[in-house]
Amino acid sequence: MTGMRPAEIRVSEIFGPTIQGEGALTGLPTVFVRTGGCDYRCSWCDSLHAVDSAYRDEWRALTVEEVWSEVTRLSGGVPVMVSLSGGNPAIQPLGELIARGHREGYRFALETQGSVARDWFADLDMLVLSPKPPSSGMETEWDDFDACLRSSRGKPQTALKIVVFDDADYAYARAAAARHPQLPVYLQPGNHTPPPPDDDDAPIDIDGVMERMRWLVDRVIADKWFEVRVLPQLHVLIWGNRRGV
Amino acid sequence: MTGMRPAEIRVSEIFGPTIQGEGALTGLPTVFVRTGGCDYRCSWCDSLHAVDSAYRDEWRALTVEEVWSEVTRLSGGVPVMVSLSGGNPAIQPLGELIARGHREGYRFALETQGSVARDWFADLDMLVLSPKPPSSGMETEWDDFDACLRSSRGKPQTALKIVVFDDADYAYARAAAARHPQLPVYLQPGNHTPPPPDDDDAPIDIDGVMERMRWLVDRVIADKWFEVRVLPQLHVLIWGNRRGV
Ligand code: SF4
Ligand code: SF4
Repeated sequence: MTGMRPAEIRVSEIFGPTIQGEGALTGLPTVFVRTGGCDYRCSWCDSLHAVDSAYRDEWRALTVEEVWSEVTRLSGGVPVMVSLSGGNPAIQPLGELIARGHREGYRFALETQGSVARDWFADLDMLVLSPKPPSSGMETEWDDFDACLRSSRGKPQTALKIVVFDDADYAYARAAAARHPQLPVYLQPGNHTPPPPDDDDAPIDIDGVMERMRWLVDRVIADKWFEVRVLPQLHVLIWGNRRGV
Repeated sequence: MTGMRPAEIRVSEIFGPTIQGEGALTGLPTVFVRTGGCDYRCSWCDSLHAVDSAYRDEWRALTVEEVWSEVTRLSGGVPVMVSLSGGNPAIQPLGELIARGHREGYRFALETQGSVARDWFADLDMLVLSPKPPSSGMETEWDDFDACLRSSRGKPQTALKIVVFDDADYAYARAAAARHPQLPVYLQPGNHTPPPPDDDDAPIDIDGVMERMRWLVDRVIADKWFEVRVLPQLHVLIWGNRRGV
């Protein structure tokens, strides 16, 4: 067949390099490809501009080559970690992009809630599964989550990352960790002042985040949960809610 | 020979578990064994109470069993990461303590400037070599540093961690990384308001630390140094200069 249009990737924004602010790769220079669209609607979503269809007209349908040329331009052609995030990046056709980048020495991390499995998860360098706790208002389908793990075929470095706001979230995190004893677990105190999508400069309650961080450390220590990592969102501490840094 | 007293470890403080605030293990629950005494005198040392001999009368000479019983008491007998720090912990006889803890499933990380090599570095789980940049007022003897690396015989996970205050420190970090291309590198913005040893509640210039953090991220990105990690001292952000948390 001729004239077939290549699969397009729905992109909300591409920015960086800046340092990764969350989880296992915290502190690592990273270019972010944030895709548009999500099958979830978490109450505290901090990426609504990449989720809510009200922002759909800001999203672009790009070919692999178009995405790739922005990534290489931003990184000056020097291989860097590329974070595929969203929204839920698993609903986009990203396999080809990963293959394209690997040929030039770039690495790829993907973060998803674990609701949609893809064969190309096995081609990632890092897979961050971030199931959403009760405070999100979402319900985890563990069968879908396990399908994501199976798709990765044990190839990428894989970690669980769970946002914790309260006791119920903490109990959820404990249970999720117990279901997956082989996975390293990262807990992240929730930010109850996520950025409104239209206001980059909305104030953030850093004291509240830090108080939740101290509470979370206390919980983990009291439970003698010594294999977990507790990390705040570093970019929020450094830059507040500002986007694109 | 009978009646030989077992080698004693000079201890400034044992505390925790709390989360590791620096480097590769940031966020991990850890018990800290801070030894007393150091062969360096860094201008910005943040552990003067474990360095300056004026505080020597607060240090205790403890046997392995005495240290071990404090560590197990603090961790409730549950295996946890133990950080051996100082001062310079390499000047203490720690080999037996490591063997003792390993038998019960504990893990050990040691952080040293890399001035004194020990055979038992090879028994660690993690070796953090933190050579001191020009702003410290110290001079790195790279032969001694390389002896530390050789002692470890490639066994523990090993990382470079370098504190950066200014351009000269940054250039030093670049050169140190280039000398050791096989080692992961962690850069840490310096804290120019380290705790005076007698005052737990001395205010800390968080804004200054964060400004240095942003500067450091900008430097790394501008240089396309994409393999490095830039991490602030997390415990300082969470608890300020308070000791023992
Ligand atoms: S899964 Fe992530 S992107 Fe989607 S709504 Fe929830 S927080 Fe937002
Ligand atoms: S090497 Fe470490 S403990 Fe020793 S003086 Fe320098 S900063 Fe302080």
